[in-house]
Amino acid sequence: MPTNLVILAAGQGTRMQSDLPKVLHEVAGAPLLHHAMQAGATLQPDRVVVVTGNGAEDVAAAAQDFDPQVLIAEQTERLGTAHAVAQARTALEGAEGDVIVLYGDTPFVRPETLERMVEARADHAVVVLGFEAADPGRYGRLVMNGDALERIVEFKDATDEERAITLCNSGVICVDAATLFELIEAVGKDNASGEYYLTDIVAIACSRGLSATAVACEEAETLGVNSRADLAAAELVFQNRARSQAMQEGVTLQAPDTVWFAYDTVIGRDALVEPHVVFGPGVTIETGARIRAFSHLEGCHVSRGAVVGPYARLRPGTELAEDVKVGNFVEIKNGILDAGAKVNHLTYIGDASIGAGTNVGAGTVTCNYDGVFKHFTEIGAGAFIGSDTMLVAPVKIGAGAMTASGSVITSDVPADALALGRARQENKPDLARKLMERLREAKRNQSGGNS
Amino acid sequence: MPTNLVILAAGQGTRMQSDLPKVLHEVAGAPLLHHAMQAGATLQPDRVVVVTGNGAEDVAAAAQDFDPQVLIAEQTERLGTAHAVAQARTALEGAEGDVIVLYGDTPFVRPETLERMVEARADHAVVVLGFEAADPGRYGRLVMNGDALERIVEFKDATDEERAITLCNSGVICVDAATLFELIEAVGKDNASGEYYLTDIVAIACSRGLSATAVACEEAETLGVNSRADLAAAELVFQNRARSQAMQEGVTLQAPDTVWFAYDTVIGRDALVEPHVVFGPGVTIETGARIRAFSHLEGCHVSRGAVVGPYARLRPGTELAEDVKVGNFVEIKNGILDAGAKVNHLTYIGDASIGAGTNVGAGTVTCNYDGVFKHFTEIGAGAFIGSDTMLVAPVKIGAGAMTASGSVITSDVPADALALGRARQENKPDLARKLMERLREAKRNQSGGNS
Amino acid sequence: MPTNLVILAAGQGTRMQSDLPKVLHEVAGAPLLHHAMQAGATLQPDRVVVVTGNGAEDVAAAAQDFDPQVLIAEQTERLGTAHAVAQARTALEGAEGDVIVLYGDTPFVRPETLERMVEARADHAVVVLGFEAADPGRYGRLVMNGDALERIVEFKDATDEERAITLCNSGVICVDAATLFELIEAVGKDNASGEYYLTDIVAIACSRGLSATAVACEEAETLGVNSRADLAAAELVFQNRARSQAMQEGVTLQAPDTVWFAYDTVIGRDALVEPHVVFGPGVTIETGARIRAFSHLEGCHVSRGAVVGPYARLRPGTELAEDVKVGNFVEIKNGILDAGAKVNHLTYIGDASIGAGTNVGAGTVTCNYDGVFKHFTEIGAGAFIGSDTMLVAPVKIGAGAMTASGSVITSDVPADALALGRARQENKPDLARKLMERLREAKRNQSGGNS
Repeated sequence: MPTNLVILAAGQGTRMQSDLPKVLHEVAGAPLLHHAMQAGATLQPDRVVVVTGNGAEDVAAAAQDFDPQVLIAEQTERLGTAHAVAQARTALEGAEGDVIVLYGDTPFVRPETLERMVEARADHAVVVLGFEAADPGRYGRLVMNGDALERIVEFKDATDEERAITLCNSGVICVDAATLFELIEAVGKDNASGEYYLTDIVAIACSRGLSATAVACEEAETLGVNSRADLAAAELVFQNRARSQAMQEGVTLQAPDTVWFAYDTVIGRDALVEPHVVFGPGVTIETGARIRAFSHLEGCHVSRGAVVGPYARLRPGTELAEDVKVGNFVEIKNGILDAGAKVNHLTYIGDASIGAGTNVGAGTVTCNYDGVFKHFTEIGAGAFIGSDTMLVAPVKIGAGAMTASGSVITSDVPADALALGRARQENKPDLARKLMERLREAKRNQSGGNS
Repeated sequence: MPTNLVILAAGQGTRMQSDLPKVLHEVAGAPLLHHAMQAGATLQPDRVVVVTGNGAEDVAAAAQDFDPQVLIAEQTERLGTAHAVAQARTALEGAEGDVIVLYGDTPFVRPETLERMVEARADHAVVVLGFEAADPGRYGRLVMNGDALERIVEFKDATDEERAITLCNSGVICVDAATLFELIEAVGKDNASGEYYLTDIVAIACSRGLSATAVACEEAETLGVNSRADLAAAELVFQNRARSQAMQEGVTLQAPDTVWFAYDTVIGRDALVEPHVVFGPGVTIETGARIRAFSHLEGCHVSRGAVVGPYARLRPGTELAEDVKVGNFVEIKNGILDAGAKVNHLTYIGDASIGAGTNVGAGTVTCNYDGVFKHFTEIGAGAFIGSDTMLVAPVKIGAGAMTASGSVITSDVPADALALGRARQENKPDLARKLMERLREAKRNQSGGNS
Repeated sequence: MPTNLVILAAGQGTRMQSDLPKVLHEVAGAPLLHHAMQAGATLQPDRVVVVTGNGAEDVAAAAQDFDPQVLIAEQTERLGTAHAVAQARTALEGAEGDVIVLYGDTPFVRPETLERMVEARADHAVVVLGFEAADPGRYGRLVMNGDALERIVEFKDATDEERAITLCNSGVICVDAATLFELIEAVGKDNASGEYYLTDIVAIACSRGLSATAVACEEAETLGVNSRADLAAAELVFQNRARSQAMQEGVTLQAPDTVWFAYDTVIGRDALVEPHVVFGPGVTIETGARIRAFSHLEGCHVSRGAVVGPYARLRPGTELAEDVKVGNFVEIKNGILDAGAKVNHLTYIGDASIGAGTNVGAGTVTCNYDGVFKHFTEIGAGAFIGSDTMLVAPVKIGAGAMTASGSVITSDVPADALALGRARQENKPDLARKLMERLREAKRNQSGGNS
């Protein structure tokens, strides 16, 4: 039976103290909304509806960025969760199968949990996701009778006996599409806040003789983000999961608590990551590579045996082949380095390819920007780029060529040639001494003048 | 009624294992002493007396550094806390109102707590600050009788019943100025250590029919620093407070535990701070700025929309206008960057102003130091500084001017002009191959010689 | 009485998911095996036998690297711990005194603990090391009868009463050399896994009327490494010990949790280490030095009063004399800096000596590599190296000499001389404007062409 998703992403998130819509705040380099969409995506849903509201345009754009097929329903007034889901009615017109309602600010529901909800639908009209709370506090409680969910009771309305229940309501719900909107139509707003609550559909379903049940998950899965502190807590949940998983897969993290992954970081077995490393989105690291301390990687591929850092920054479009070395205070953007190439110190490589075994000296810069356009630098295999070489792109350095240190290379260098572009050294005897004496005298006069 | 402060800062701090007086060790970039003085400063005290002893001269200088009006009283012998307070007698001669005794190694007493002590003075002659200890251990206990503090009992003298008390003595005390010194005169040294204890004034006051009471605060407020481990613990208390507060005010800290604030860091709403960032003293960040990973800021201002880092170091005197970008491995000291200026890679800007929209290429250096004097570099708006440009200060680059990459600029460049200062490139065909062959042969011969 | 060690290092470590033998994974910059060998080394053992198996050759090499006198015994089949110890029989032929059996994957047994085991041997034939487990879980339990160890019972064979015991078996054992192998010969493999268990020798000893006892240690000492998560946990145990010890010895660690030590880091009293610092092996720091944030040190010596960083990388062979300053984005390898020398910004110093008081400008590079050989740069005292100077080694700069910024120095500079090697600056009026106009026009045409 097909599944459909409704993701509620209209909330304002007042406690975030932000101009950015809440669901666009990021965890592990991706908006909360993408995490929620990702959780549902593994069910291969027929239709996905995102209900926008606050910052509707930006949220819609982010949703489409993740899934171009997404349907958008805007909630222009904030009248409660049932009202929010009701906005998806048109988008789900004629949809078959189940609808799962998720929340754009709840990034960690596991796909397996959603699958269990779908399975539970075989025997029940309504399936609610509950979590076993360590401290149930003021959460709504799920009142079960054996397998059957009798009702959801708000904390303030709960008896002492009900308050002792630890299975709490996450708000995530799974219902047949047709039934969902029938039930929602019956939801009233006769409560303290005057809002239409989605959870009311459980009581309505039961009153109509439809059966409900609950599926339980870990509390961490239902962590919602309502403040910057929550956001930091969510980030940490993600990171701790990612760190554990990497270690289980055979990656050495010398200091796991100091390594920050993105949502899509992939690291091979027997790779080693030193302390204080940040991975932005789009990084793949092959087996046996070493990422040294204080490195920052984003949108790049590092092949087996390569050593990166310390203090290396790899930016999008960077590909390091096997056994490449990128050393300290080196930035590489859109650079393709062939096997065994070395860029060890204080260098900027941007928009360039570097051949196998080539050595790039300290202080080298690919001058890729002329103020308007970006240009490419092509360096052949086995070349030797002297320290402080300026490679004014577009320019090609042939295989086996050398550049003298301090040269500005503005035109191509043929293979095996040596390119020079520097003035001859002159020594002026005793001039340093005289200059310094003059400066120190000026200093003395100045100090004298002050007194 | 006016308030006066006595801050005890004479202790040696043996367990610190340090040549530096204990109260000069720093938390969040400020000496412990300043934190204690700051707590009291919000009461707008009439007189502030710092009692020095160990490292008296340095401690006095630090006190004056915080508050030029501060009075210094030196305790030449270490004979106990009552003796230390007694040294302030002359400095407080004729002082009106209350005296609060604080400790220079206890940085976190909240101003509101001190205000509550002052208020409690309305009904009591002596007000003692107590804290509810999670583990009271060997602290002195405050024996209360209803609202009244009956006495302070040392742990070793306490009955089992008294040891069950969890309200402990912080040592902070508030008494009318005249009364304080009368009571202190009555303090004896008939105890195990032969010292004059300030806490004895409670018993003396009670024996004279004066009433005493206690005000309770959180344990964290009375955290004292006696070892480097305490110092690290105090630093963490400060940082966790600062991190929480920043998040509450709408700052995103992706990894709060890796961000280090100074005592005076100010960050605007919707600013974003990535992992591994250090703020030294004197930093203000406007709303919406982004501070990227591995950045280090000190004495600088970052305007809205600016992006700093990763790996950017901003030093004192740096001001970034709106939308400025400072990239990786860039150091800026005393540099004023106008709106939209970009300094993206491997650059040192020192003592310079950079006009709006100007782009500074990789490897640029403002050569501001001639060995004796520092000089200024002035770059106009819309300029383009080519990579590896040496700007030998004092020098001016006009608006819209360019410098060719690899140039050493020793004299001013008019607006819209292009400045060049580099040798022409020459290619020597096949010379690289020959040079490398010769070197490799030398290597072979060398290896041969070794065998 | 002499002592001998058998260190079991044959295990495969399947859960490590690694091609590297388990005992060669590192904690604090040294293989687990070295940590285990180090624990035993303080007993000054007569003979040390390492039993290899998985990755035998590499493990043997690592063992010899730590102790050239080590004896290697290879276990070609993995038949249990008793079988592993049996492989050491030949190596221990004729050995006198006790044998302590340690584990190559258990890095933290304290030397004092081993000494207590040796002392306990005075009264007992067999001494087993136990630990008080916070959560004994499935560990084997040590069943004591007063001072006597009656037997070791596996969890699965234990009665409820025995399971309540919290003193657990570490596997570390101390027996007289002759007795050890007699007992081992009697060990059978009549158990679920069909392996020969070393712990069985306790029961055998008792059945022969020999007495056994247990010595208890802290649980952290017996932490074994079986997975990458264990390895990270072991690293953290080491680091927390090292951090505490440094602070006790009078080092300020502003953020202890962000500082990573190597096994042999030595830091003097009143040194200050800022957040986010990594120490590789071989670092000594004298009193009063300051290591600023984001620094990375390895194989170097920093003298009193020196300031390193932020963002400084010191590599092996670096020695900083008193009051040297090494600033941001500076890498030094095999560099000797004399008192008061300054290398403040964006510089690579490799294979060089720098005289007292010399100032090295930003962007300087010692060009030490010609593609085959490394060469040395020698800079005298009181010299001034202008920014962006390329020092093409081998080269000598005399005392008091200067180099003009942007110069490539290929031949020696005499003392007090000024060396220049750069082209004269030319300004081309209005050319920048024209160039930019042309580029922008090209851009416009391009955009037009796209529409």
